[in-house]
Amino acid sequence: MIFKFFPKIFPQEFSFFDLFDKQVGYAVEATRCFKEWASKGADGTMLKKIEVIEHQADEVAHTIIGQLDKTFITPFDREDICALAKEMDDITDMINTIMSRMTVYKLTGVNKTLVEFSYVIEQSVLCVERAVKGLRKPKKAKSVLESCVEINRLENVGDAMRDEALAKLFEEEKDPIAIIKWKEIYQYAETVLDICEDVANVVESILVKQA
Amino acid sequence: MIFKFFPKIFPQEFSFFDLFDKQVGYAVEATRCFKEWASKGADGTMLKKIEVIEHQADEVAHTIIGQLDKTFITPFDREDICALAKEMDDITDMINTIMSRMTVYKLTGVNKTLVEFSYVIEQSVLCVERAVKGLRKPKKAKSVLESCVEINRLENVGDAMRDEALAKLFEEEKDPIAIIKWKEIYQYAETVLDICEDVANVVESILVKQA
Amino acid sequence: MIFKFFPKIFPQEFSFFDLFDKQVGYAVEATRCFKEWASKGADGTMLKKIEVIEHQADEVAHTIIGQLDKTFITPFDREDICALAKEMDDITDMINTIMSRMTVYKLTGVNKTLVEFSYVIEQSVLCVERAVKGLRKPKKAKSVLESCVEINRLENVGDAMRDEALAKLFEEEKDPIAIIKWKEIYQYAETVLDICEDVANVVESILVKQA
Repeated sequence: MIFKFFPKIFPQEFSFFDLFDKQVGYAVEATRCFKEWASKGADGTMLKKIEVIEHQADEVAHTIIGQLDKTFITPFDREDICALAKEMDDITDMINTIMSRMTVYKLTGVNKTLVEFSYVIEQSVLCVERAVKGLRKPKKAKSVLESCVEINRLENVGDAMRDEALAKLFEEEKDPIAIIKWKEIYQYAETVLDICEDVANVVESILVKQA
Repeated sequence: MIFKFFPKIFPQEFSFFDLFDKQVGYAVEATRCFKEWASKGADGTMLKKIEVIEHQADEVAHTIIGQLDKTFITPFDREDICALAKEMDDITDMINTIMSRMTVYKLTGVNKTLVEFSYVIEQSVLCVERAVKGLRKPKKAKSVLESCVEINRLENVGDAMRDEALAKLFEEEKDPIAIIKWKEIYQYAETVLDICEDVANVVESILVKQA
Repeated sequence: MIFKFFPKIFPQEFSFFDLFDKQVGYAVEATRCFKEWASKGADGTMLKKIEVIEHQADEVAHTIIGQLDKTFITPFDREDICALAKEMDDITDMINTIMSRMTVYKLTGVNKTLVEFSYVIEQSVLCVERAVKGLRKPKKAKSVLESCVEINRLENVGDAMRDEALAKLFEEEKDPIAIIKWKEIYQYAETVLDICEDVANVVESILVKQA
């Protein structure tokens, strides 16, 4: 943490921590948007909203990578900053993909399994928020690690949910085209939890290096 | 750019720029091959040709990575050279995969959407060629950046094309087996444009570091 | 190889080589488990066993990454150690995914193509074991490279097997739902060989850097 001794070299406006907070905020917003979409059924307003969020998150990711290439002293390893920026962006991207693909497939009704996924995804992304925001407070390391453990647990929950959802789909649904559609959506939903786990792995790695 | 002061340490025969030019040349060749394949329908000669191109591109990628491991001074960051080599190889690979999978699926006719994809892919890969070839001329930075912006635009065009193609496929095609086949082909076609965008991101990152 | 001059800084209990041996051992175990599964048909005992192996392999991967973040002197480049740990873990993961997905899809019978895949996968993972174990003996470099060449050859064999299997599936199977299931399983089986090739690429890169 050389960083704290050279505040001038790392001015506030380029603070990676502020940019991370902003980006994880978009991931949380995306999650909330998806929860509403899943529980109320497809909705044009929500689709517009997620596209705006995705675009904003993308811009922050670009800003982070751009700053990284221009900055000599960084609060932690460059590859960890880069990985965090890309993976947080992937969360928002994947949620956008789910909602956009459901629109393409005209899946407009409420699906109980997807509602359940949206709750687990929200829990996981809130843990990601706690972990990422905690990175700037070295004293919070313990609580950051607890969030990472919870993210890993929720990824396992998601795996089981996807397996159960696929088993039910192949058992009950007789229309192969509906199977093609929902199989893809369930797999994407589980992928959001995989990406959260990737973020947790980067965060854990940052903590170990700082210890 | 320490490189230019030590021409002897970085002899011509190991020039990464020459290897990049060669590799991006194979990506352009692959694109042309695919355009002909898409517009005239599947053809055994084209399939043989793409396999040869893919093999040659693969060898150049191996040469680049091998040189990288043996070379002390490189024109830009090692991880950027490695990423460029791998992603340019991925372009040729993915085009080969599309043509080979269409052969496996016996999709031999002309498909209008695929023809459109082949044109957008050609445009994007030509921008990749301009960007990669421009890397050796620092004065061309502005035009390189313009190519990157265009690659990003074409990726968005490709996203919209894929969504439209999938929507039409699920609406009009009643045979689930045909849906399985074309869904995969359209998604692969869009993936080529994603890979071009990955190349553009690496190129932009190289430019920022050199600025 | 600064490492060998400072044995005290790199104590036996944190030996990356020992951890790699352990992890590649789990990959071999997973392969054997899968071969039995494929040749005798789905079996609850095998499914339990692969889950245990996958969990153990995951823990070793975590230990390697954790040690890497805490260790100053490493036997080879940190990113190569990290890549090796992740990709060897991916082998076990993917085999677990195949067996778990087949359970979800209720694919319980013996499938000739999958039996063939299981033999090629076993051969490839045994080469991976030879390559990874050879890394600690610089004199074995030639035999390590031979294993890498064989892994590449087997990946090509796998590509051809997958193409043939898909062609046969789409030609003979009339039930689209069965096509959806087996298409995914065959593609996952081929992916195991792709991951082995990724390991071989990292191993080759390590050897080139040491030369």
